[in-house]
Amino acid sequence: MNFRMIGRIISFILIVEAVFMIPALLLCAFSGQTASSTAFLISIIIIMAAAFLLWVLTRKAQKGFYSRDGLVCVGLSWIVMSLFGALPFFISKEIPSYIDALFEIASGFSTTGASILNDVEALTRGMLLWRSTSHWLGGMGVLVFLLALVPISGRNDGFTMHLLRAESPGPDVGKLVPRMKQTATILYGMYILLTILDFLFLVIGGLPVFDSVCIAIGTAGTGGFGVLNSSIGGYSPYVQNVCTVFMFLFGVNFTCYYLLLCGKIKNVLKDEELHWYVGIAFCSIAAITITLLLNNTYSTFNETLRHSAFQVGSLLSSTGFATTDFDLWPSFAKAILFSLMFIGASAGSTGGGFKIGRALLIAKILRRNVRQVLYPNKVQVIRMNGRVVDENILRNTNAYLCAYVIIILASFLLVSLDGFSTTTNLTAVVSCFNNMGPGLESIGPTLNYSGYGVFSKIVLVFDMLAGRLEIFPILVLMSRSAWKRR
Amino acid sequence: MNFRMIGRIISFILIVEAVFMIPALLLCAFSGQTASSTAFLISIIIIMAAAFLLWVLTRKAQKGFYSRDGLVCVGLSWIVMSLFGALPFFISKEIPSYIDALFEIASGFSTTGASILNDVEALTRGMLLWRSTSHWLGGMGVLVFLLALVPISGRNDGFTMHLLRAESPGPDVGKLVPRMKQTATILYGMYILLTILDFLFLVIGGLPVFDSVCIAIGTAGTGGFGVLNSSIGGYSPYVQNVCTVFMFLFGVNFTCYYLLLCGKIKNVLKDEELHWYVGIAFCSIAAITITLLLNNTYSTFNETLRHSAFQVGSLLSSTGFATTDFDLWPSFAKAILFSLMFIGASAGSTGGGFKIGRALLIAKILRRNVRQVLYPNKVQVIRMNGRVVDENILRNTNAYLCAYVIIILASFLLVSLDGFSTTTNLTAVVSCFNNMGPGLESIGPTLNYSGYGVFSKIVLVFDMLAGRLEIFPILVLMSRSAWKRR
Repeated sequence: MNFRMIGRIISFILIVEAVFMIPALLLCAFSGQTASSTAFLISIIIIMAAAFLLWVLTRKAQKGFYSRDGLVCVGLSWIVMSLFGALPFFISKEIPSYIDALFEIASGFSTTGASILNDVEALTRGMLLWRSTSHWLGGMGVLVFLLALVPISGRNDGFTMHLLRAESPGPDVGKLVPRMKQTATILYGMYILLTILDFLFLVIGGLPVFDSVCIAIGTAGTGGFGVLNSSIGGYSPYVQNVCTVFMFLFGVNFTCYYLLLCGKIKNVLKDEELHWYVGIAFCSIAAITITLLLNNTYSTFNETLRHSAFQVGSLLSSTGFATTDFDLWPSFAKAILFSLMFIGASAGSTGGGFKIGRALLIAKILRRNVRQVLYPNKVQVIRMNGRVVDENILRNTNAYLCAYVIIILASFLLVSLDGFSTTTNLTAVVSCFNNMGPGLESIGPTLNYSGYGVFSKIVLVFDMLAGRLEIFPILVLMSRSAWKRR
Repeated sequence: MNFRMIGRIISFILIVEAVFMIPALLLCAFSGQTASSTAFLISIIIIMAAAFLLWVLTRKAQKGFYSRDGLVCVGLSWIVMSLFGALPFFISKEIPSYIDALFEIASGFSTTGASILNDVEALTRGMLLWRSTSHWLGGMGVLVFLLALVPISGRNDGFTMHLLRAESPGPDVGKLVPRMKQTATILYGMYILLTILDFLFLVIGGLPVFDSVCIAIGTAGTGGFGVLNSSIGGYSPYVQNVCTVFMFLFGVNFTCYYLLLCGKIKNVLKDEELHWYVGIAFCSIAAITITLLLNNTYSTFNETLRHSAFQVGSLLSSTGFATTDFDLWPSFAKAILFSLMFIGASAGSTGGGFKIGRALLIAKILRRNVRQVLYPNKVQVIRMNGRVVDENILRNTNAYLCAYVIIILASFLLVSLDGFSTTTNLTAVVSCFNNMGPGLESIGPTLNYSGYGVFSKIVLVFDMLAGRLEIFPILVLMSRSAWKRR
């Protein structure tokens, strides 16, 4: 394991984190919130000091950097980032418990959006901005950001590849262009563009600039932190619909946008994952709308459609915003939402969950197995978008499902110690692990995670990070062999 | 597909079913319950007529019989068996709706033990006996019975192998002895022996003979149908403890018993699955007992231990008897029971669920994957009990997990249409699919499935059969390619 190189990268990560705290610091300073701005200033100084110390300690880094180094580096980076990112909340005493502050920022970076705050509106604007900023950084990935913008001297393409692979969601990372560094830059370019578009649409709709910024970057990262206690429910229908559209857009594989920009519309239209994404969204909205109409939950068809489209967009893209208390919906509608929590967004998007691409592979693996029983002598390959999928990717997808099930069951058991209902505990784990935010019953969209004890919160923080990083970086960290000296 | 041969085997299965109705018929006749005995008589006549018709239609069967034929044969047999097995309940009007009768008998054959009866004690004794008999037949498998006892002329070993493989639970069927037919005979021999032992212990404890027979054969099949509304709760602590012990015993891989009989004690003690089975049982009982004691649920330590051991034995072996309403237990205890529902008994036992052996393989697959990331150039094999596991078995285990997750989610969605709570729907599906019986909330141990609609009941019948046959025989039936003519 190349620990020096890993330490060096983490020192860069810490600098990026400190830089991203500056907007919040300035906002606090200009609006005269001295306590908050002091907290940000102290946090930035601590983080920069830690970065400097780490940089000094890791000056003579070796060259070799392998896949396992990439995984360990990503896993450690995110943990360190969360530990330091919690400082402003804690120092300013706006969130008095450090564990709560850690939960809040891990929820931010992992784009979960689960909160322990009973009263979001009691936070100062600087803190609200930092919460939402963490979504934006976490959405596309802080290492991808580092690779895209910061020139780390003399690194080869393999280095970039391993880091990008470890941090990006989905069963396989497609290279958009031959050089990985350029891929990272293009990804962030499109990400920034879409975020600005979202912001503009919100401002045009009359939303205050501060709210627009927070909601836009929260939507971009498919996070879910809002600035009001009512999440998005207090805004106009126009704003809600803009959010719906952009939540769906950020749940799409960014490769599709790149292909669109290159004029390869045919390739986009043929994308199997996109077909399923659109299909699942459409069917879910239709089924929920019909259920709600039959149940007379809302007074008009328009309102029903708006709420059902919003909630489907929110949970399918793993954002976690809410416009209504869907815990009060009929159980079939809730069951659909619960299933959407599992499936999640597309691979290569900023969304969380199991990913539609991976679920598709799982279904194809199963179909192959049935066919192999029927025709044992025929060699069967699995295709995706017409191309044969490598057996290694299939093996990893299978292992991913194994880890997914094991972690959910184990976390559920541990979290149950706090005495909440079965549905609460199960949806808490599923929601955190798939980076949604709200669950059902005691952690429904109008409630929050403050009732859980310290131990459960640590378990859920683990789940959120493991979910965002797609398990393996965290799993490798927990493996004894990773810590052996070469 | 060799449909004639399949039809021929099904005709034999029907005869076996009719023969096993005779004890219930005699019981009704001797106790003067004319309506019930007439119902059994009519059912037997219909079944024999169907068997004869099928036998005539399939006289010229070809020779070739492959793995796929085995799967289709097993899948069809169990469906046909359930369709005809429901007749006595329906004809006697003791269960007026045919779907309800089908649910009850499918629950019996699949050894689930889920019931739609509000008042079990209202059934005549003959019907109660038939319910429990179905557990015993389903536990070890009716095709295994056929292979063990009935000489079907001129069949080779491959034929027997394919049927045994398709019907027996677990990732791999070990041949106990070189000839498969003998393996089947040995399995049934041990099964009968253990059942008789259970019966004797119950009778010695002062339980009436009728109750003892029903409870013994229900325990042997790890079914869960009792003869009282209070399940096992109304019996003495001695009887409850006997049940606990035998539920655990029937959840052990029968190969272990065979090895014990051969004096190979060392091999048994080294069995990895057995270690985990005992370990999980022990830890679950300890954790639940402590939780209940801290919560002061029962007055004495002995009572607490008895109830927790019973419930763990019941759910780990997938039997589904209950001595207390565990839905009222604290949520950590309920979470453990919920997790046990998933894990299930050992492979090669009469129990249901995912099987511990399979879960162990899944964990090993995951560990291999992590190691492969760390040391990409090292070839990693997976061992079980010291022997290398074939990659084909690993692939099937992976596919099994895929199917498992997909079926549970899909069934949960469909069942939710009836409007019960999320926990009810989820535990209903998990409980039926893993052949347990009771779930939580509206289908808790003191309640039943009568509230579900016709559609949901059909979904649950599918789940019970798919769960008992470990998915593939039912999945192959649903595949279009299985129905193409060669």
